[in-house]
Amino acid sequence: MRLTSSAAGLFPIAPTPFTADGAIDHGSVETLIAAYLAAGATGVTVLGIMGEAPKLEPDEALDLTGRFIDGMPGLPVIVGVSAPGFAAMRSLARAVMDRGAAGVMIAPPPALRTDDQIVGYYAQAVEAVGADVPFVIQDYPLTLTVQMTPKVIRRIVEDNPSCAMLKHEDWPGLEKISTLRGFQAEGSMRPISILTGNGGLFLDFEMERGADGAMTGYAFPEMLADVVRLQAEGRRDEAHDLFDAHLPLLRYEQQQGVGLAVRKYVMMRRGFIASAAQRKPGAALSARAKAEVDYLLARLAAKDPRAAV
Amino acid sequence: MRLTSSAAGLFPIAPTPFTADGAIDHGSVETLIAAYLAAGATGVTVLGIMGEAPKLEPDEALDLTGRFIDGMPGLPVIVGVSAPGFAAMRSLARAVMDRGAAGVMIAPPPALRTDDQIVGYYAQAVEAVGADVPFVIQDYPLTLTVQMTPKVIRRIVEDNPSCAMLKHEDWPGLEKISTLRGFQAEGSMRPISILTGNGGLFLDFEMERGADGAMTGYAFPEMLADVVRLQAEGRRDEAHDLFDAHLPLLRYEQQQGVGLAVRKYVMMRRGFIASAAQRKPGAALSARAKAEVDYLLARLAAKDPRAAV
Amino acid sequence: MRLTSSAAGLFPIAPTPFTADGAIDHGSVETLIAAYLAAGATGVTVLGIMGEAPKLEPDEALDLTGRFIDGMPGLPVIVGVSAPGFAAMRSLARAVMDRGAAGVMIAPPPALRTDDQIVGYYAQAVEAVGADVPFVIQDYPLTLTVQMTPKVIRRIVEDNPSCAMLKHEDWPGLEKISTLRGFQAEGSMRPISILTGNGGLFLDFEMERGADGAMTGYAFPEMLADVVRLQAEGRRDEAHDLFDAHLPLLRYEQQQGVGLAVRKYVMMRRGFIASAAQRKPGAALSARAKAEVDYLLARLAAKDPRAAV
Amino acid sequence: MRLTSSAAGLFPIAPTPFTADGAIDHGSVETLIAAYLAAGATGVTVLGIMGEAPKLEPDEALDLTGRFIDGMPGLPVIVGVSAPGFAAMRSLARAVMDRGAAGVMIAPPPALRTDDQIVGYYAQAVEAVGADVPFVIQDYPLTLTVQMTPKVIRRIVEDNPSCAMLKHEDWPGLEKISTLRGFQAEGSMRPISILTGNGGLFLDFEMERGADGAMTGYAFPEMLADVVRLQAEGRRDEAHDLFDAHLPLLRYEQQQGVGLAVRKYVMMRRGFIASAAQRKPGAALSARAKAEVDYLLARLAAKDPRAAV
Repeated sequence: MRLTSSAAGLFPIAPTPFTADGAIDHGSVETLIAAYLAAGATGVTVLGIMGEAPKLEPDEALDLTGRFIDGMPGLPVIVGVSAPGFAAMRSLARAVMDRGAAGVMIAPPPALRTDDQIVGYYAQAVEAVGADVPFVIQDYPLTLTVQMTPKVIRRIVEDNPSCAMLKHEDWPGLEKISTLRGFQAEGSMRPISILTGNGGLFLDFEMERGADGAMTGYAFPEMLADVVRLQAEGRRDEAHDLFDAHLPLLRYEQQQGVGLAVRKYVMMRRGFIASAAQRKPGAALSARAKAEVDYLLARLAAKDPRAAV
Repeated sequence: MRLTSSAAGLFPIAPTPFTADGAIDHGSVETLIAAYLAAGATGVTVLGIMGEAPKLEPDEALDLTGRFIDGMPGLPVIVGVSAPGFAAMRSLARAVMDRGAAGVMIAPPPALRTDDQIVGYYAQAVEAVGADVPFVIQDYPLTLTVQMTPKVIRRIVEDNPSCAMLKHEDWPGLEKISTLRGFQAEGSMRPISILTGNGGLFLDFEMERGADGAMTGYAFPEMLADVVRLQAEGRRDEAHDLFDAHLPLLRYEQQQGVGLAVRKYVMMRRGFIASAAQRKPGAALSARAKAEVDYLLARLAAKDPRAAV
Repeated sequence: MRLTSSAAGLFPIAPTPFTADGAIDHGSVETLIAAYLAAGATGVTVLGIMGEAPKLEPDEALDLTGRFIDGMPGLPVIVGVSAPGFAAMRSLARAVMDRGAAGVMIAPPPALRTDDQIVGYYAQAVEAVGADVPFVIQDYPLTLTVQMTPKVIRRIVEDNPSCAMLKHEDWPGLEKISTLRGFQAEGSMRPISILTGNGGLFLDFEMERGADGAMTGYAFPEMLADVVRLQAEGRRDEAHDLFDAHLPLLRYEQQQGVGLAVRKYVMMRRGFIASAAQRKPGAALSARAKAEVDYLLARLAAKDPRAAV
Repeated sequence: MRLTSSAAGLFPIAPTPFTADGAIDHGSVETLIAAYLAAGATGVTVLGIMGEAPKLEPDEALDLTGRFIDGMPGLPVIVGVSAPGFAAMRSLARAVMDRGAAGVMIAPPPALRTDDQIVGYYAQAVEAVGADVPFVIQDYPLTLTVQMTPKVIRRIVEDNPSCAMLKHEDWPGLEKISTLRGFQAEGSMRPISILTGNGGLFLDFEMERGADGAMTGYAFPEMLADVVRLQAEGRRDEAHDLFDAHLPLLRYEQQQGVGLAVRKYVMMRRGFIASAAQRKPGAALSARAKAEVDYLLARLAAKDPRAAV
């Protein structure tokens, strides 16, 4: 099971469930996987920015990855391996690939500025993890401060046959998807998979611009999968109706910093995980914020019964 | 007419209307003012980040300000005077105050980092514009990269009696409003007006947290004014219903970089201004993007007839 | 008198002399010009980052420029016109060129990241100031955070015939000079003038790498001119001997933030200007720092008698 | 052997010696230690920014640390444990302390902005590594972009009894040392050790301002130790004479990015290490740059015979 450039559908960004005392909650890993499968996930991404990966010991990270691989047989598991140094990136990449991962996701370090620096970095990263390991480019300037033009992405894709996917979360980014698909249409770039992040805030239109699916952590993966499917079936209005119903909550979740706390809280309310706890240090959700999320859930339930908790 | 700490309601951030050849379109300034007044604006802000202020000659900036002052008699006009140097800030501030402006808005320059640097900068700015000129703190870390804690804002408020208002657009920022209102409640900070920006993306809850109103440029100022009013009247569900109906378009408009082009396009479609043109250099809206906005407008019109164009 | 790509020698970055109460000290402008001419300056740059330009009113800026133009007849005066908006850049550029300036210097705004953004910015700037106005690229990533590769500089040079000079202050930057001169040697870039900044910290080797001279504000312009001349004459060891004698003081001056205060203090001690005052807000030099500078001056005077004050 | 707040003298920042094929060169670790001891080092810092730590596997990092501990008996070994996550920081800190390290050095992550964020981060870091582990604050805004005021440093010192030392490399930073020593003098901050970095560029005056010594990687540790000693003995002019003789080379080494390549090259020429190789990816020194360093060494040798190679 290797990640390929034809990957599509929904790859949830999985949070790491913890118990209140900070241990990984293995039972919740199982219920979370069950929820993803029920939602129609076609893969999963672990150890992403939202996965609290930097708080995990190496053994924990590898064990967690293995549980997802075992729990989602036949589906590709992508592992975030971004690291300040290539030694750590290589170790983790080799270990998870040996364990059965489908590919790795690599974000550029914030210090990169020029086009050549970015292209050079991915060349070095591929050398570090091995040219046989499929990888995903994470393009997330809002958080990472690294700006990749479509031409830079094309250079990375063309230089590295092991590049299978772009995780697109530039903002604004709709034109970027159109430009990249235009490169493919004119034959100047080979096809790659494009899954979109950014909390799903533009998923409705991203699918229309040519995205292959979603890779984000919104606490209703069913909605993400449904919008992807409806758009693929050409049912545009239905896709937007469903998306719009969720947008008030999705928008609330998408706040940087506090977003993970919101997601875990909703997932707990929905029974995906037993506790909303984050391993220290983690942002706490105020009572006021919880009440706001409850209000949003109640309003959503009137339109999408799956939100009833 | 001086800006005071009891300001509330809707202060739209006004764009600057241009003709296709880059001249200021004075007729559109009139129709824009009429639209704001019809929407229930209680003031207006000109020469803000969205107002293309850096593209205006000093004479143009002063003339434009005067037109808003004359066109909205009895209502406070706030003028953005942020500048890389205090000489330009002082010149503009004195000129617009002489012309009848109610106060000025000052954003911190991006290089500021430490708490003391930020507090010190506002002390210098007040010395530059004059301690008799009411001013607004613009707290917009997403764009300006300057992070002000609530305690820093309190220091600025307490140090400078001429501070009348906070334009709040931190993200996430709901807890910040609660914290500042808590300072007031405990008596450690004098009351100030808090109007919220960020494209209105969290206006529904910001009002519940204690904001006094909105200061942003969404192309449906009626919605902003209505949400502010409904929340003030305690009609929470109605406020959220209206807000949610607009959220898909509002979210689309809120994209950094392309947002102004979307706003001007919608305002043109609505008859607020004659042309969506930006003075060079400006971002163009692709045909694809225009079609997306049209689609959003059509969907919105089904819920809010004012969106029918 | 137009700036050309054959400019060479010493273009001091001129500070703006103020009296203790913040007025421009016109008498000190005269003595400063006399000092520059005596040092062998082949041009001068005003309204640069060190010139406290953002503290000047537009009339003051234009008047100051005129005084340098009149005081240095036959020598090119370059004017810094970097501004957050093109309107201000254009106004100032046209005004100073009408007054007799030889060209303008344009720094990229800090938000620029990708290669295309930088190239596009200079295209817009040239459109703003006019394609007939010779301009200088300021490449100063340490302060401006914008990183231009040699290839990006080449694109700007080739796209814009009015580009006459690079003010080089990348750090480290020796290889960059060699690469650019290599472009010229291979015929892929037309010749331009390269003057170096960075406080002069690497002037000794920059000249050997192919720089045409110095554009910086070290308080001993005589040394800068001498090193440029000695290297041009092939007297390498003498150039380094002189440079090394000045390095302890030059290094002390080159500190960001406090550097201008040091320079003005030394210039005052040397009689170039009457007062070390900066217009508010300005960094003050502590008594301890003054004593350190005095100590450095005394030590320098033992090797270079011109340092005796 | 625990690091205490009375640490003083010279703690070189050790590079990691590699063979040409990228393996750690254990023989060169021995010769490097011998050179440090001969130079009068009173401690050493390993796995710092210059130590290529991110390229080391965890086992290699621990083994390297152990070799320094064993090779410098009775002297404190400080270990850089800065990491993007607290899990990795804790693992490394506990492992090296168990192995006999004297303390750890912790740099703030670049995203920190407000005073409270910085203070909060150190509280969390102390909780992660254990309050029993002596730690060093690394204050290096030029590279890390985090700006700590003296008051913030005081808060960290006062909040955390395990804080033993400040590695000072703010720039400019002389006033900062004076301010911190002033805090101690007035009794508002307990005494800590202050060692200075920044490549040694201001060591001459830093000692006069109250620093306890140097912690940097200049390839002539003898000079650093001598300047520290001469200043402690009140032999100011001699200290400056020696410092000034080295300044041209020290300045050349201090360039960000290429600095490590220069240092390793000089150390190789001096016989401290067998090869100047960096583990990939590493900056190469051009032939031209090597010739420049050779020239600087030859010139230095005329003043300090230890530079003869």
